[in-house]
Amino acid sequence: MKPRLSITLLVVLALLFVGPAGWSDVRYEVDPPDILGYKTLKCDFHMHTVFSDGEVWPPVRVEEAWREGLDAISITDHIEIKPHEDVAGDHNRPYDLAVRAAKASNIVLVRGTEITRDTPPGHFNAIFLSDNRPLDEEDFLKAVEAANRQRGFVFYNHPRPRWYDVHTKMLENGWLHGVEVVNGGTYYPHAHRWCLEKGLTMMGTSDIHDPAPRRRTTPENHRTMTLVFTKDSSLKALKEALFEGRTAIWHADQLIGSRKYLEAIFKAGVQIGVPHYRDDDEEAVWVEARNDLPIDVRLERAGDYGPRNITLSAKATTMLEIDIDGGQEQAELKYVAGNFLIGPEEGLPLTLTVPSR
Amino acid sequence: MKPRLSITLLVVLALLFVGPAGWSDVRYEVDPPDILGYKTLKCDFHMHTVFSDGEVWPPVRVEEAWREGLDAISITDHIEIKPHEDVAGDHNRPYDLAVRAAKASNIVLVRGTEITRDTPPGHFNAIFLSDNRPLDEEDFLKAVEAANRQRGFVFYNHPRPRWYDVHTKMLENGWLHGVEVVNGGTYYPHAHRWCLEKGLTMMGTSDIHDPAPRRRTTPENHRTMTLVFTKDSSLKALKEALFEGRTAIWHADQLIGSRKYLEAIFKAGVQIGVPHYRDDDEEAVWVEARNDLPIDVRLERAGDYGPRNITLSAKATTMLEIDIDGGQEQAELKYVAGNFLIGPEEGLPLTLTVPSR
Amino acid sequence: MKPRLSITLLVVLALLFVGPAGWSDVRYEVDPPDILGYKTLKCDFHMHTVFSDGEVWPPVRVEEAWREGLDAISITDHIEIKPHEDVAGDHNRPYDLAVRAAKASNIVLVRGTEITRDTPPGHFNAIFLSDNRPLDEEDFLKAVEAANRQRGFVFYNHPRPRWYDVHTKMLENGWLHGVEVVNGGTYYPHAHRWCLEKGLTMMGTSDIHDPAPRRRTTPENHRTMTLVFTKDSSLKALKEALFEGRTAIWHADQLIGSRKYLEAIFKAGVQIGVPHYRDDDEEAVWVEARNDLPIDVRLERAGDYGPRNITLSAKATTMLEIDIDGGQEQAELKYVAGNFLIGPEEGLPLTLTVPSR
Amino acid sequence: MKPRLSITLLVVLALLFVGPAGWSDVRYEVDPPDILGYKTLKCDFHMHTVFSDGEVWPPVRVEEAWREGLDAISITDHIEIKPHEDVAGDHNRPYDLAVRAAKASNIVLVRGTEITRDTPPGHFNAIFLSDNRPLDEEDFLKAVEAANRQRGFVFYNHPRPRWYDVHTKMLENGWLHGVEVVNGGTYYPHAHRWCLEKGLTMMGTSDIHDPAPRRRTTPENHRTMTLVFTKDSSLKALKEALFEGRTAIWHADQLIGSRKYLEAIFKAGVQIGVPHYRDDDEEAVWVEARNDLPIDVRLERAGDYGPRNITLSAKATTMLEIDIDGGQEQAELKYVAGNFLIGPEEGLPLTLTVPSR
Repeated sequence: MKPRLSITLLVVLALLFVGPAGWSDVRYEVDPPDILGYKTLKCDFHMHTVFSDGEVWPPVRVEEAWREGLDAISITDHIEIKPHEDVAGDHNRPYDLAVRAAKASNIVLVRGTEITRDTPPGHFNAIFLSDNRPLDEEDFLKAVEAANRQRGFVFYNHPRPRWYDVHTKMLENGWLHGVEVVNGGTYYPHAHRWCLEKGLTMMGTSDIHDPAPRRRTTPENHRTMTLVFTKDSSLKALKEALFEGRTAIWHADQLIGSRKYLEAIFKAGVQIGVPHYRDDDEEAVWVEARNDLPIDVRLERAGDYGPRNITLSAKATTMLEIDIDGGQEQAELKYVAGNFLIGPEEGLPLTLTVPSR
Repeated sequence: MKPRLSITLLVVLALLFVGPAGWSDVRYEVDPPDILGYKTLKCDFHMHTVFSDGEVWPPVRVEEAWREGLDAISITDHIEIKPHEDVAGDHNRPYDLAVRAAKASNIVLVRGTEITRDTPPGHFNAIFLSDNRPLDEEDFLKAVEAANRQRGFVFYNHPRPRWYDVHTKMLENGWLHGVEVVNGGTYYPHAHRWCLEKGLTMMGTSDIHDPAPRRRTTPENHRTMTLVFTKDSSLKALKEALFEGRTAIWHADQLIGSRKYLEAIFKAGVQIGVPHYRDDDEEAVWVEARNDLPIDVRLERAGDYGPRNITLSAKATTMLEIDIDGGQEQAELKYVAGNFLIGPEEGLPLTLTVPSR
Repeated sequence: MKPRLSITLLVVLALLFVGPAGWSDVRYEVDPPDILGYKTLKCDFHMHTVFSDGEVWPPVRVEEAWREGLDAISITDHIEIKPHEDVAGDHNRPYDLAVRAAKASNIVLVRGTEITRDTPPGHFNAIFLSDNRPLDEEDFLKAVEAANRQRGFVFYNHPRPRWYDVHTKMLENGWLHGVEVVNGGTYYPHAHRWCLEKGLTMMGTSDIHDPAPRRRTTPENHRTMTLVFTKDSSLKALKEALFEGRTAIWHADQLIGSRKYLEAIFKAGVQIGVPHYRDDDEEAVWVEARNDLPIDVRLERAGDYGPRNITLSAKATTMLEIDIDGGQEQAELKYVAGNFLIGPEEGLPLTLTVPSR
Repeated sequence: MKPRLSITLLVVLALLFVGPAGWSDVRYEVDPPDILGYKTLKCDFHMHTVFSDGEVWPPVRVEEAWREGLDAISITDHIEIKPHEDVAGDHNRPYDLAVRAAKASNIVLVRGTEITRDTPPGHFNAIFLSDNRPLDEEDFLKAVEAANRQRGFVFYNHPRPRWYDVHTKMLENGWLHGVEVVNGGTYYPHAHRWCLEKGLTMMGTSDIHDPAPRRRTTPENHRTMTLVFTKDSSLKALKEALFEGRTAIWHADQLIGSRKYLEAIFKAGVQIGVPHYRDDDEEAVWVEARNDLPIDVRLERAGDYGPRNITLSAKATTMLEIDIDGGQEQAELKYVAGNFLIGPEEGLPLTLTVPSR
């Protein structure tokens, strides 16, 4: 009998060990800038665990998020896909099992789930729920209605290019609030267009099933995430921001979002220095451009002056050689940031202002 | 009703997706050399999943092993520690759920489990079982006997420094076959000594609970593993090799094992070139030493000639400047490889033979 | 007076220190395979030092080459461009200053120089010279003739797309032996075509002026180099191989060369395993393909079976899932290696042979 | 004749190419914080070129410095060691050749040189000179006096442990202002002590002769440098700061300096968050500590509360679990930063203040 008793102790120790997130571990901060008076939260609202077709235990998603510098996540296991017959537990278990880890590691954990149907209608995430169970409905629209009854935020996952009647109906009912413009590694230009046309919130998610393949977020290797511009770090402020469409997406080497937000991010993150050297023989001045963003900015010249192509590498300073024209230093340079997408294949127009010496 | 039908399809797709191991993924081979007519298999016989206190679904352990260049693993969930109340399934489930992934990815999967008690006696892994369930015994020795009845290989995990009567009894019964000299990041000199004194097989394991933190094995960053010297890649040959003690351990920047095996590994992996340059003013010849092992070799001079300290970096060539004494080039240089441990704090003595020009 | 004396000693020490190449340093071997009975040497025959418009002292080029795993180099400072007025010394000094470092570090150092004119005719390297000075001729063709009188190997550097009469004349005189198909980061399809049409040797060089930006050669980050297939590592064999056109070029993620050599490299470096698993439900067998080359192989299907696109990552194993057709396992799979260029925009056709189980 | 003309053009182009520093290149900023109202400049005042026993052309030192995030350098070629007989030019040439690159890349270039004798007296750098030539004096003290006549800053390089009369004499004359506490990879505890005892400025330098081995500065891999706390970025302010001893040294994983500066750096770079979670069962609160410094901070507990050892990784957030004692959250935690050296083997004592919830 005695061994069994002490095993209880071991169980407790084991639980503690696997409990709250990795404090022996390290979180490298990502740091896109706060803009327009808002705080910028790094979020991923689409991920899976063994409670549907994922491969990890729920708190792992919190630990991964913490290490990768995220601020808020939602575990959105499928209501309808539960291939692991050995795993019991109702639709609320993933959240319930992860919540202590989230508290200890300061991650905002949003209760959510994925409503899963063939297209049409397709797959939909509902987040900011208080109880996932009422969404276990045979009728699709009843499930969506159940989500909305809880004032959940509903978005359309990895959408096919065609917009169906059921989507119109959801929109008309006020039941659809966002669309994944990026899911994992895939960008959907049609979803981008829908967001612009129909006022839906742009979402970017990992839809991760496997354990996360990285230990930290870098400009070259990061999870697809949604940047949400919030009044503060609370669940309430986060929800409000999503309903008001205050998001941008960081996908691969691109930022995707409305002109207003991308422009603000550029301005907050990139500083052009005062020209520090002038060479009249070469008819040029030299200027440093410092990019504190975690993403390269790839600029193509849209005006008459400045280098034709500039890459402002992430977290680095780039030296610019700018033409002098007739003795006149150029103060305003016109460019387009090709990897800051304000629409499908439409880069962000920018003016680089060079301070006078 | 229709949605449910197609969900069945989705389930099948999902199962396929998470089923066999990552063939869209890449395996970087590790390549310690085959020695003494044996094949060298890279093995990890201690790891956990959600079926005990681990954090991942069983096939993940196969995918991780494949990516990290391992050849054989055993998932050894605790019989007695099952903190996840949502996970049902008997003691054989982890193996059964991982076996298809193992077949598809050419990993030898060994059925095993961990018998878990406070010390004494401590924790023990039993591997090469046909059925884990009979080990679910209240009486510790009955559990060990059940493992041995199946002709399992039993080893003592992360041992405390004291050897107890129960261990002597196990040894006398022929029920104990190996000891973890390294568990994760911890080396146990007392276990190393026990192996040498009592003829137990040296084991090195990860005891991994979390998802694996690396995508590939490198000299600088690898899982603790047991190198097993086998007649072929079969389960039978692997088992025979373990019972006969044909192992070495790769831990951090050290190899641990008997003199015979470590010497063979050194000889198979390190080549000294013919001196390619002689400088009579400096009274030295220059020679290249190429180390094809995945581990640095750190040499300290034990004789009169040669550089005092040499590091032969892994997978690299090092230039050696060797003294000429009275016109005589030195052909035999005495060294000790400080990170090739043939006993606690005892490095491997070596003679570097320089071929004549 | 005394200080001055001991300074002589310091000078000697300093000379030793900066003399022969970096033996405190490490060389990571690159290891493209030997093929067709030849040894494969990794070579770079175009580089500069402070003796023309480069930025380093000559032995640095040897040290860099050794660290990056090269076997043979030529320092080819311009005869005509000597911007550093503080640097005296005749056209042979770069070689003379580097030769001891080359001997000590086992690098084959080839005496050479660059004849420099506007196009036409352009810039030409002459290597395997015994004395660079006779090439200091005002008349271009006299300089080329002087190189050939020494039985030098002459190749055309970073060629413009147009072939001029002067080139025809050089060719007719037997004075032109190779062309740079790649210079630094730039590939010249017209040069590739000229080599195929006119039987010129394909050359790939770094044309490095700055200090080398890397410490070791990796598949992702390496110097443009010429692989030369030689009878042995001697200067004589190297020269013979160049005159006989036994080369291929490693540039970025591409190999460029004749079908014969690229095919031999592929066969020597890539092994397809015996199918280790068959799944009749999925109608597929699983096979491991191991690529020991230092370059990824990117394959596109040209036949009816096998995955459409395969990337065999460098120094890694890739799992292939191959269709079974009507119970029949496919033994011969047709592919094209898109990054093994046997002509401009023409990949290497290949048959992957799967051994039977 | 014509070719020669166009070669002039080529020369000009080549000069431009190798002229000002790498603007096609990228500078990753290092960012130790500004402190106590001063700007923190990253400096290296000891390096060599081909004009003494170094291996690179002078502007290379500027390009390297820019890429590695430095703000100010001095090229300090030996007056007395000039092993490269092919290189002519007086003692001012290295500066003169590098100054345009420095201007274009916004690096403060300080004219300097190294006075070189056997010990005693040893080697001394003199920087902030207007003309290096008057230091070419047979008599050592006359050379030092010449440096001081130009109001140069003189420091003792890689000092032997013994302090000689000549050093006392220099000190008494006001001719000695600093000592290298670190040269390259070597730390001199005796030099550290001298600085504390005699009020000499602490210097850390690379003394680099080879091309720089790195492309960017990281916490794990950086050049030994002196942090100088200046009123602004001007040459004048830099000189004043050195004479007033406002420096610290960044060497390997250590900061070395007076308590005042190291404490200020810690306070400016490390932020302790408000406890975000309290667990009464575990009697602990959880707090995030964010370290924006480019160096890990290794803390050992000196009081009764908090984790025994903490590593605050560079540019990362670490989660701390802090004991609650009798319901009381601990607001002040006593630690010693073992890698912030305020004396030989003496770490910086610190109080971590945890804001109340």
